[in-house]
Amino acid sequence: MKASFLRFKLILLHRDIKNMADSNQIRIFTESVFQAIGCSEEHAKLAADVLISADLNGVDSHGVARLAGYVRLSDHGRLNPKPQIKIIHETPGTATVDGDKGLGLVVAPFAMKVAIEKAKNVGTGWVAVQNSNHFGIAGYHSSHALAEDMIGWAMTNAAPLVVPTFSKEKLLGTNPISVAIPAATEPAFLADFATTAVAYGKLEILQRKNEPLPIGWAQDENGDPTTYNNAVKEGGGLLPLGGDREHGSHKGYGLGAVVDILSGVLSGANFGPWVPPFATAGFHGVAEELVGKGTGHFLGAMRIDAFQPADVFKENMDRWIKRFRAAPAVEGQVVQIPGDQERNFRKERLENGIPLNDKVIESLEELGKRFGIKL
Amino acid sequence: MKASFLRFKLILLHRDIKNMADSNQIRIFTESVFQAIGCSEEHAKLAADVLISADLNGVDSHGVARLAGYVRLSDHGRLNPKPQIKIIHETPGTATVDGDKGLGLVVAPFAMKVAIEKAKNVGTGWVAVQNSNHFGIAGYHSSHALAEDMIGWAMTNAAPLVVPTFSKEKLLGTNPISVAIPAATEPAFLADFATTAVAYGKLEILQRKNEPLPIGWAQDENGDPTTYNNAVKEGGGLLPLGGDREHGSHKGYGLGAVVDILSGVLSGANFGPWVPPFATAGFHGVAEELVGKGTGHFLGAMRIDAFQPADVFKENMDRWIKRFRAAPAVEGQVVQIPGDQERNFRKERLENGIPLNDKVIESLEELGKRFGIKL
Repeated sequence: MKASFLRFKLILLHRDIKNMADSNQIRIFTESVFQAIGCSEEHAKLAADVLISADLNGVDSHGVARLAGYVRLSDHGRLNPKPQIKIIHETPGTATVDGDKGLGLVVAPFAMKVAIEKAKNVGTGWVAVQNSNHFGIAGYHSSHALAEDMIGWAMTNAAPLVVPTFSKEKLLGTNPISVAIPAATEPAFLADFATTAVAYGKLEILQRKNEPLPIGWAQDENGDPTTYNNAVKEGGGLLPLGGDREHGSHKGYGLGAVVDILSGVLSGANFGPWVPPFATAGFHGVAEELVGKGTGHFLGAMRIDAFQPADVFKENMDRWIKRFRAAPAVEGQVVQIPGDQERNFRKERLENGIPLNDKVIESLEELGKRFGIKL
Repeated sequence: MKASFLRFKLILLHRDIKNMADSNQIRIFTESVFQAIGCSEEHAKLAADVLISADLNGVDSHGVARLAGYVRLSDHGRLNPKPQIKIIHETPGTATVDGDKGLGLVVAPFAMKVAIEKAKNVGTGWVAVQNSNHFGIAGYHSSHALAEDMIGWAMTNAAPLVVPTFSKEKLLGTNPISVAIPAATEPAFLADFATTAVAYGKLEILQRKNEPLPIGWAQDENGDPTTYNNAVKEGGGLLPLGGDREHGSHKGYGLGAVVDILSGVLSGANFGPWVPPFATAGFHGVAEELVGKGTGHFLGAMRIDAFQPADVFKENMDRWIKRFRAAPAVEGQVVQIPGDQERNFRKERLENGIPLNDKVIESLEELGKRFGIKL
């Protein structure tokens, strides 16, 4: 079995760029790992597609770097590889979905399909999801509305890493929100962001480099601003978007709270400090007290032509996008449209491969060894 | 007529607190001014209620301080005091409303009622509004869903004051967003905020005091950070929530853009840099080029029991609110729930009156003199 991993390493080095992986080969490997933990072929392909999309879009923290984490969720009995995902409550325009402890990576696409069907019937569709877990990048799910000439929404809560304004305690997850909006000839508008000043992955990069954080990203255990890159692990917390009160942190806190309430309270999932953690390497179980089922999401689809003719809207979106792109930029920069960064990464990585750091490669090698999967 | 203004002044001084006005007296005066420019009694009462709510909630910039501005809108022929507000397109769960150049203060409540009725029928209701103008505080409109056991949403676009990340040009308004969520015994959750680091009103306060801005609020005409309190007027711009790219300004930009697109592009109103300005003192008309009708709003209502039993949800909201309130706070502060600040102001101002600065009093006195309205 050793031989296959040498081959894997060789492929990674294939293009003479250190640790560059071909997205198709990583995709096949990822599908095989999901099948190895009991997922159906259909679910494995879908879950892999969500992870590879993150890697292609440049969101390295949400791609195959998390594959070992999903396997650990399974090892700890927190994942049902063959979930019976079902609607447990509905109206013509809404539904509540029970994810049956399935991969968030497949539960969220199920819920998004329901939202799109509801929108076809009554104009918009909104689905709250309980009993799920990490769903990957929010933008993957919101984007599914685009091909239907709909505006897509996706959000999720997550385990607490973030301090509300003036709190010393972490009570909210990074709680991302994504909105995808179609255009005509221009590429789609895609906002997809954590409701914090920065994603936790950016702190991890500085931890690896042993460099200090900029002020405004995190606070220490006393609630004071800090540059210490391990502060969040040691009693501190990530700051909401805005940073401090003077710069609007109460707005980032409010937005993260809305995401938590729609994803958690409205769905019947856990919320606030009770949201169970993703299975990180040091993970040993969920909190003793729970207030709901698993992690929660909230997904929505709004049919454009429920408001005005889709072609008129999309032409005006082109106009919006072109006008914003044409704004004079500060020296050395360009004014981007939300979604441009992801598209730029995708173009480059489809061509040149996905860069993987040593730790990620090591985790993939371990998974391959454990399940006997060749690359 | 002079006598009545002396009396007005006396009332303002009534409680021995300089420039403190009784909210009921200011309300009656405001209703009379709206009637004087041609509004029906019903519309005048509603419009005054929105403005007085802003003053009571501590949002001084959006209260009677703007009354003279609405009158200027009328003077410039941009306001229809007797609008035929109507639905121009609809599905079971959505509508597009034409405000007929009416006061946003009455157009938005019309649209919110439509959203609530739609939600009663199909679970949620969403209404895009064109051909309107300034609608006051977003939280007034979203809060109307609360009594129906619904989650309320309100947003609006506005004339450009805000620079997208890396742009030297102002292309977005302060584009506020509000979400109101009911609880059981706890007061409601009410997020209501501009998608900028700070509201423009905070700059005006420092302009009056002749004090510098904190870094992170505004940039100068070259796109550089500035402390100059007149920078936004002189070629600079307000920064999106997040401040700079390193602290997530692209997120605030993305959020403000979503508000602009839903309020403006989806409704058929103007959007981005084309949104007409509110009638400020130096106002001389709208841009020559327009891409839609007036200012746009977007309002929504989500029935709680379209997702789960309302009593279960509201009990969990109580739990959420109590848990967040109980978080240990940094020294000298408390952890607030979105809406607490507005409630604290309201309690205090219902008791002690609304503080009005000299400039606002002067503008009210002028209106009283012009229309012969006693206070």
